[in-house]
Amino acid sequence: MNLGMSDRVRPLVAAVRDFIDERIIPAERTFRAEINDGKRFELSDKQRQILDDLKSAARKQGLWNFWLTEPEAGGGAGLSTVEYAWLAEEMGRSQLAAEVFNCNAPDTGNMEVLLRYGSDQQKARWLQPLLEGQIRSAFAMTEPGVASSDASNISTTGIERDGSWVINGEKTYITGAGDPRCAVMIVMALTDPDGPKRQRHSQILVPTDTPGVEIVRPMEVFGTDDAPSGHMHLRFSDATVPLDHVIAGRGRGFEISQGRLGPGRVHHCMRAIGLAEKALDLMCRRGLERTAFRKPIAWLGGNPERIARARIDIDMARLLTLRTAWEIDNNGLDVARVWISKIKANVPAVVTRVIDDAIQLHGAAGLSQDTELATMYMAARALRIVDGPDEVHAMVVARDTLNPYR
Amino acid sequence: MNLGMSDRVRPLVAAVRDFIDERIIPAERTFRAEINDGKRFELSDKQRQILDDLKSAARKQGLWNFWLTEPEAGGGAGLSTVEYAWLAEEMGRSQLAAEVFNCNAPDTGNMEVLLRYGSDQQKARWLQPLLEGQIRSAFAMTEPGVASSDASNISTTGIERDGSWVINGEKTYITGAGDPRCAVMIVMALTDPDGPKRQRHSQILVPTDTPGVEIVRPMEVFGTDDAPSGHMHLRFSDATVPLDHVIAGRGRGFEISQGRLGPGRVHHCMRAIGLAEKALDLMCRRGLERTAFRKPIAWLGGNPERIARARIDIDMARLLTLRTAWEIDNNGLDVARVWISKIKANVPAVVTRVIDDAIQLHGAAGLSQDTELATMYMAARALRIVDGPDEVHAMVVARDTLNPYR
Amino acid sequence: MNLGMSDRVRPLVAAVRDFIDERIIPAERTFRAEINDGKRFELSDKQRQILDDLKSAARKQGLWNFWLTEPEAGGGAGLSTVEYAWLAEEMGRSQLAAEVFNCNAPDTGNMEVLLRYGSDQQKARWLQPLLEGQIRSAFAMTEPGVASSDASNISTTGIERDGSWVINGEKTYITGAGDPRCAVMIVMALTDPDGPKRQRHSQILVPTDTPGVEIVRPMEVFGTDDAPSGHMHLRFSDATVPLDHVIAGRGRGFEISQGRLGPGRVHHCMRAIGLAEKALDLMCRRGLERTAFRKPIAWLGGNPERIARARIDIDMARLLTLRTAWEIDNNGLDVARVWISKIKANVPAVVTRVIDDAIQLHGAAGLSQDTELATMYMAARALRIVDGPDEVHAMVVARDTLNPYR
Amino acid sequence: MNLGMSDRVRPLVAAVRDFIDERIIPAERTFRAEINDGKRFELSDKQRQILDDLKSAARKQGLWNFWLTEPEAGGGAGLSTVEYAWLAEEMGRSQLAAEVFNCNAPDTGNMEVLLRYGSDQQKARWLQPLLEGQIRSAFAMTEPGVASSDASNISTTGIERDGSWVINGEKTYITGAGDPRCAVMIVMALTDPDGPKRQRHSQILVPTDTPGVEIVRPMEVFGTDDAPSGHMHLRFSDATVPLDHVIAGRGRGFEISQGRLGPGRVHHCMRAIGLAEKALDLMCRRGLERTAFRKPIAWLGGNPERIARARIDIDMARLLTLRTAWEIDNNGLDVARVWISKIKANVPAVVTRVIDDAIQLHGAAGLSQDTELATMYMAARALRIVDGPDEVHAMVVARDTLNPYR
Repeated sequence: MNLGMSDRVRPLVAAVRDFIDERIIPAERTFRAEINDGKRFELSDKQRQILDDLKSAARKQGLWNFWLTEPEAGGGAGLSTVEYAWLAEEMGRSQLAAEVFNCNAPDTGNMEVLLRYGSDQQKARWLQPLLEGQIRSAFAMTEPGVASSDASNISTTGIERDGSWVINGEKTYITGAGDPRCAVMIVMALTDPDGPKRQRHSQILVPTDTPGVEIVRPMEVFGTDDAPSGHMHLRFSDATVPLDHVIAGRGRGFEISQGRLGPGRVHHCMRAIGLAEKALDLMCRRGLERTAFRKPIAWLGGNPERIARARIDIDMARLLTLRTAWEIDNNGLDVARVWISKIKANVPAVVTRVIDDAIQLHGAAGLSQDTELATMYMAARALRIVDGPDEVHAMVVARDTLNPYR
Repeated sequence: MNLGMSDRVRPLVAAVRDFIDERIIPAERTFRAEINDGKRFELSDKQRQILDDLKSAARKQGLWNFWLTEPEAGGGAGLSTVEYAWLAEEMGRSQLAAEVFNCNAPDTGNMEVLLRYGSDQQKARWLQPLLEGQIRSAFAMTEPGVASSDASNISTTGIERDGSWVINGEKTYITGAGDPRCAVMIVMALTDPDGPKRQRHSQILVPTDTPGVEIVRPMEVFGTDDAPSGHMHLRFSDATVPLDHVIAGRGRGFEISQGRLGPGRVHHCMRAIGLAEKALDLMCRRGLERTAFRKPIAWLGGNPERIARARIDIDMARLLTLRTAWEIDNNGLDVARVWISKIKANVPAVVTRVIDDAIQLHGAAGLSQDTELATMYMAARALRIVDGPDEVHAMVVARDTLNPYR
Repeated sequence: MNLGMSDRVRPLVAAVRDFIDERIIPAERTFRAEINDGKRFELSDKQRQILDDLKSAARKQGLWNFWLTEPEAGGGAGLSTVEYAWLAEEMGRSQLAAEVFNCNAPDTGNMEVLLRYGSDQQKARWLQPLLEGQIRSAFAMTEPGVASSDASNISTTGIERDGSWVINGEKTYITGAGDPRCAVMIVMALTDPDGPKRQRHSQILVPTDTPGVEIVRPMEVFGTDDAPSGHMHLRFSDATVPLDHVIAGRGRGFEISQGRLGPGRVHHCMRAIGLAEKALDLMCRRGLERTAFRKPIAWLGGNPERIARARIDIDMARLLTLRTAWEIDNNGLDVARVWISKIKANVPAVVTRVIDDAIQLHGAAGLSQDTELATMYMAARALRIVDGPDEVHAMVVARDTLNPYR
Repeated sequence: MNLGMSDRVRPLVAAVRDFIDERIIPAERTFRAEINDGKRFELSDKQRQILDDLKSAARKQGLWNFWLTEPEAGGGAGLSTVEYAWLAEEMGRSQLAAEVFNCNAPDTGNMEVLLRYGSDQQKARWLQPLLEGQIRSAFAMTEPGVASSDASNISTTGIERDGSWVINGEKTYITGAGDPRCAVMIVMALTDPDGPKRQRHSQILVPTDTPGVEIVRPMEVFGTDDAPSGHMHLRFSDATVPLDHVIAGRGRGFEISQGRLGPGRVHHCMRAIGLAEKALDLMCRRGLERTAFRKPIAWLGGNPERIARARIDIDMARLLTLRTAWEIDNNGLDVARVWISKIKANVPAVVTRVIDDAIQLHGAAGLSQDTELATMYMAARALRIVDGPDEVHAMVVARDTLNPYR
């Protein structure tokens, strides 16, 4: 059970780290400043330029599509999930990095789905430009007004009529749907309400410019709208697409979902660990810089215990996530599912707490725009809800633990 | 040790509750909408109108200056701290309520200081209009670049020159300084750097329109600027005020601070408890409205235990705060000081956790603009830092607990 | 809502404190030494002497039957529940104190039941000698092999046959049943298995010398048997008592239980708070006596935060318990029931944690026979299970909190 | 970084598991029953027979001295620390197993010290019989009356006089010193009080039958004496041994200690993880066997979340411990030291909590002699103090984390 960096991935990790430190982080500030100036869900020329430059530089260096485990499929690195995990941690330290290396959610999940389940035509039209970073995409599953932690609640309808799917309903918190480059959405729709419970839904490709697709409003997270990609509230009113836009076949929505969410959750968790490392780094720096009661604050009262706890908890969270990635690589998604729930139920909570402790040690500065901690906190806190709240994943772990005793 | 509502305060609590529910909460939405539209640190005509109407209606009903424990001093209710605490909890449920009843921080603390330590002239110029709600005020203590949890770090200088105080330095997170009606600040300044440790600082009244007083920028909390009152970063560059603007006398800054922060912390904590009750109320409503896995989510897994824990923790936090208020009323601020640290070290943390649990039970909606929970979270979380972080107050409690064993 | 000591109870608290410190604690060591020497569930002559002397001295001073809220009923002090709570905290500091003042469980609960529900004959035969401290008693409810947290599981049968109750079944963890002075047990028995759910059980008085009553073994708690009173596993094999030994009437077992457990839980919690105060006292003493890394260990690392947290948590637990007692006094048991669950779900857990922290600060000595901490820990930990585990009481609190929202 | 079972160790793990299940666990009950019957710190003939039979059977199967990483040194398996860790987890499930396979503490640590630092003569006299399981040994470091978490407090003196070491002082909690087969102790003594701080102490071999070595009393842990090996309080009164009984050389006591405690802590932690797995196993069984409120208690309220948390926390603790073992194997003890502190500060606390949750789910049975949980709890709780309390190791982790930022 080798959880370390392989010889193959080690130089990639180094290259990614350097690229992030030297090129991406310096550009982020400019990028963010532009968000505040322009209309929120547009990209200014300068923003487009920044992204294009970074992406083509990354691609030129071969730092591209790391998530692609099938090398033949379009220039990916053919990495294992464990190898990719190490890269994901690096990317977690920066808000733009995942996109620059074409490893951003939900595009990676969508690309995986198209790779595995898409028709040739679907691949040509959507997968190819996604692999090249020319367009972006969204995944429309969560709905307002119901507890989406139980997916059987999903009620947006897809009705076959006159050789088309006619889609009606509302979706909410659709990440990336605000980005002007978002060209297509995969919509989870109820197509067979009377079918067997796990065969009622289908995943349908809906171009964002389809008539009847409307952005109702951006959803906020702690008062911020995460522009320009955003988390949008959408309305589908008789949005109509050809029948062949269904992925894999009618009624296979759940089956596809199961495949999609596994590696994505490993990526989320490893990126979150990158965030936690950054928080601990800030905590140590600040803790030695500032003095109170004649001591560096890192050494005051319970602060060293909190620093130790952060160090230990991050190390354990990383090992558990690597172990999960290893399980995917070696035993397949089905066996790995409970491991995925283990990390999803635990890692975002750990990361959130580490960042919160870092905020507290910073005092008011930790809450303010003078550090990235508040932004990091909001991202980590949201992860405790996104893709199934902690509690739902804990139930999966409990069920799996109790199962052999029946 | 009577901690309940007195007969005198019971009808006031009812009146305040009704006024908030019937008049303030409906007006808040409009008030907030105006913030987003206009320039952030100005007040629109409509906003001024809303505030003026609410305030004069409240004053007409005698719902005014509850914090004033000396009835002769200007129309206050002559309530005990315990009695006021019950009102503060009610006010905690609404963002505007404290101002509407002229009970908002930092004005209450500033008024207390002026009442107790101000000269007749200072009272006439500043206290009177504050008591009538005509102007607002700020308290400038925290500084950038140092750990303000140790007050001896404060370094903004006040130098006597030509019969005036000449003030130089920076202050940050100055609540209320963004409000266009903020007419005066009490500035904590280092006036006697070589004096005995607790006599080096003075509190000086500085009108906000004094040349050399500059608002550098609004500080954010989790990305929000809390407009229109804000938490401002200020710069004082040779800001010059007459010598008689010092309060109580040169070198008495610390002494005044000690008196000021006690009741204010009780108010903060009771308002926070109001927030927690609101969060628990939202948690219960949502928990019974939404269903997942064929059960109301309030009854799923660990949720009932979390609801019970919220109920119990809020009840304990309230009792501890009322006990602290009782201590102020019966044994005076000096004896009460350790009780004040007990609530400050504990209540904001409890309230923050309750709101966080409420967010989690709401799922994504709890993070969004569709509930008030995110805003409430940010307010409660900030309280764990404002007026001394939890850890500093815990040290005070530890010292007091260990003291008899020396 | 007066939660303080009344003028009436204050001198009693002082007298009890002095009596415990001066007479009981010095005698305890001798008493305990005798336990280890003799047969475990007998009382040596010396032990009987110690108890008799202490009890008659206490009774002479009027320190007797404090739990008796009806003064006319036999020499009790006619105290309110709040007043009694303050005394219970004092008694919690010593293992023998409750018995010395005739306030020990389960006798107090049994006496309350007899007072409220007993026939004249039952009162004459059992209540009178209990009030005078001449005999002891037990309450036999918990059974092996079922989850007793759900009382409807109770299956020991009481069958009416030939003008008698014939009792068969096993009971376990029956506190006090090992004491040679234990003369009678109140046995919860299933008498009407087909009746309405809450009318199936009856409480029947069974003299311990009834043929067919057998002590199977002493149950241990963390390897200790709590001799000489013990927690016994009992077997009833055709144990036969007259029909008039049923209390209040057939099928009223649950109804009586409800009444019994309320005040008893307040007493348990207040005694536990006495334990916690003692643990904190030991923690402070040790923390200042011992030095490591050139600092008193009380001031090392997170220790002062732990001391502060103990201080705050104990204060809150006490206030909540007093609030509960006040509710019993002023609004009756029915209204108070949810408050009783609040303290039962919370106070033993808080006390257990405080003692555990005290152990940790003591190092190995905290686990050893050189301090009382290990014994205190075991007592507090057991309280999280006795009389309904934390989790069951949390459910009661959750249900009550959610109730108004249906 | 391969943390899994190697092909070499996998069959050993299976053999050890089977041996424990089939031979040791059935014998344990008899062994324990004898403890209660006989004098506590003697071994009955039957006990000796049980141990001899098990040990010779184990040795015959090659299940012996697994801890020995140098194969040439006497029949050990030449395993890596990672490999040994997997075996230690298995051994953790049984109280006798470690001794049966000659892998028990403190013998393993003592043997390691002798192997690495012992003279040929010391090896012949003490190491050989230890390797063959003929004698047992103790390690005498902790002292009464001082905080032993700071080793510089150690004050038992070793004075060179007339060609001998003359030892005076008291030691306490000396594990294994009660066993009648304990033939030798390694005593940490202050030999050079004026030397450089880390060269003041020496480790001296003291045969237990040396005149002047006295067992004062057995120390208890939660009221139990852990007979027959025990944790003894010892007194040395002019105990005199030849000069050549010093290990490695005068003043090297600390240096030797550093080497000794590393792998030992990995073993402790892995055995503790074995305990935690056993607790979770009991929790799952009981949780599905017992029903309350018409549900298996495993599925009531927060119980599934607690089961999931146990599952996740144990997995993380194991990974962290294996990672630490890997560090010892690959980067040496010096580099591994901070990892050792990470597990020591964390694993015993995690295991203690898991066992405590298992107790709570069992109700009173969890505290009683009817499950092993109470015994397991006491063992795990003690580990949070033994070999340096959690807090001291957390400080080591904090220091190491902050170090690069100086």
